[in-house]
Amino acid sequence: MAPKAVVLVSGGLDSAVTAAEAVARGFEVHALSVHYGQRHDAEIEAARAIAASVGCATHREISVDLASFGGSSLTDPLEVLPLDRPAEAISRGIPSTYVPARNTVLLSLALSLAEALGARDLFLGVNSVDFSGYPDCRPAFLEAFERLASVATKAGVEGEPFRVHAPLVLLRKSEIVLRGRELGVDLALTRSCYDLDRAGRACGHCDSCGIRRRGFEEAGVPDPTDYQ
Amino acid sequence: MAPKAVVLVSGGLDSAVTAAEAVARGFEVHALSVHYGQRHDAEIEAARAIAASVGCATHREISVDLASFGGSSLTDPLEVLPLDRPAEAISRGIPSTYVPARNTVLLSLALSLAEALGARDLFLGVNSVDFSGYPDCRPAFLEAFERLASVATKAGVEGEPFRVHAPLVLLRKSEIVLRGRELGVDLALTRSCYDLDRAGRACGHCDSCGIRRRGFEEAGVPDPTDYQ
Repeated sequence: MAPKAVVLVSGGLDSAVTAAEAVARGFEVHALSVHYGQRHDAEIEAARAIAASVGCATHREISVDLASFGGSSLTDPLEVLPLDRPAEAISRGIPSTYVPARNTVLLSLALSLAEALGARDLFLGVNSVDFSGYPDCRPAFLEAFERLASVATKAGVEGEPFRVHAPLVLLRKSEIVLRGRELGVDLALTRSCYDLDRAGRACGHCDSCGIRRRGFEEAGVPDPTDYQ
Repeated sequence: MAPKAVVLVSGGLDSAVTAAEAVARGFEVHALSVHYGQRHDAEIEAARAIAASVGCATHREISVDLASFGGSSLTDPLEVLPLDRPAEAISRGIPSTYVPARNTVLLSLALSLAEALGARDLFLGVNSVDFSGYPDCRPAFLEAFERLASVATKAGVEGEPFRVHAPLVLLRKSEIVLRGRELGVDLALTRSCYDLDRAGRACGHCDSCGIRRRGFEEAGVPDPTDYQ
């Protein structure tokens, strides 16, 4: 019987490739999407389509309104994000789109589900190359969470330790695009934009769109993104 | 200006005394109650009353439906809990009321709020004496979370580390009762029972009621609990 894994699926490119990677490694994959107050439901619809498309065994959704705490332009509707920033500017400092402790919350929910299901493996599509400013996308964070998981849970204390997998953590966006294509992921289903319109089309100008667009260009893969 | 702290307030005895302790230590205290699918809203109403009564500056509520993941008799309406168990039986093994990764989820939400508010101090009313079976009530868990918090956040990476305070972690229930009385906490507001009725009255027979009742007895303090 295949071992179970929990994969956080956001609707974006990186988590789609991560879910496909977990399936390719032989896990029975249980997808989890967290509504944390981001501004667009199109991401969650994309997450549903991706989970089905890459062969996840189940897909669950859970809501937690981190936006009510404030502290991020990604969940705060009033902050205006700068447009068309060059890659060098994006990778400098911690961006205003940082959501306080977001990946800690997401991984703790994945851990709760994993323990309830009897899974020991968590997959997270973080990447420390393009968005080097987010502290909770770095290997030191992932290692600290892995240590926490094994003292925090009945399963970890009584049995074998949990493993946190972030197969994309050291890849460039272009390498993620290529790996996604290799795994047969339908990249047209994915949504990366911070400012999707009601139809789920990308703005083409936010930091996330810029990194994604350059990723496809560098990979030499046609960009399937539906732009406004 | 007083430093800010975030305190997790559940409506129970331990978190009420913890919140009062944080106020007594001079913090501007921001209470956070998490609805995680437990079976009774009376706990949340108690949390509101306690936060106001002990002098918290603000009180926030956030919902996250851990019950949808299953894996605990505390959130699963079908499991029957044993009644009137002796203290020795309660402290043996990990109880069926363990909610997978509950305190990891609660602390991660407290961390997110703390970072958004500019607080560095988190208070949690866990106790490793009476319920020694819960792994996420032990000092090793608290230390691992503290280490995680400082690599997981913008505030932790750029500034001073976060501190996780669990002032009751090594106290017996009777000592918690006495400390609560010393701090002037209205203990009648608190709810500890796993099986409250619709009026918010305690069953008197679950593990939590048993530990609480013996705590008041051992402390020589009249038990203000409203029993069914």
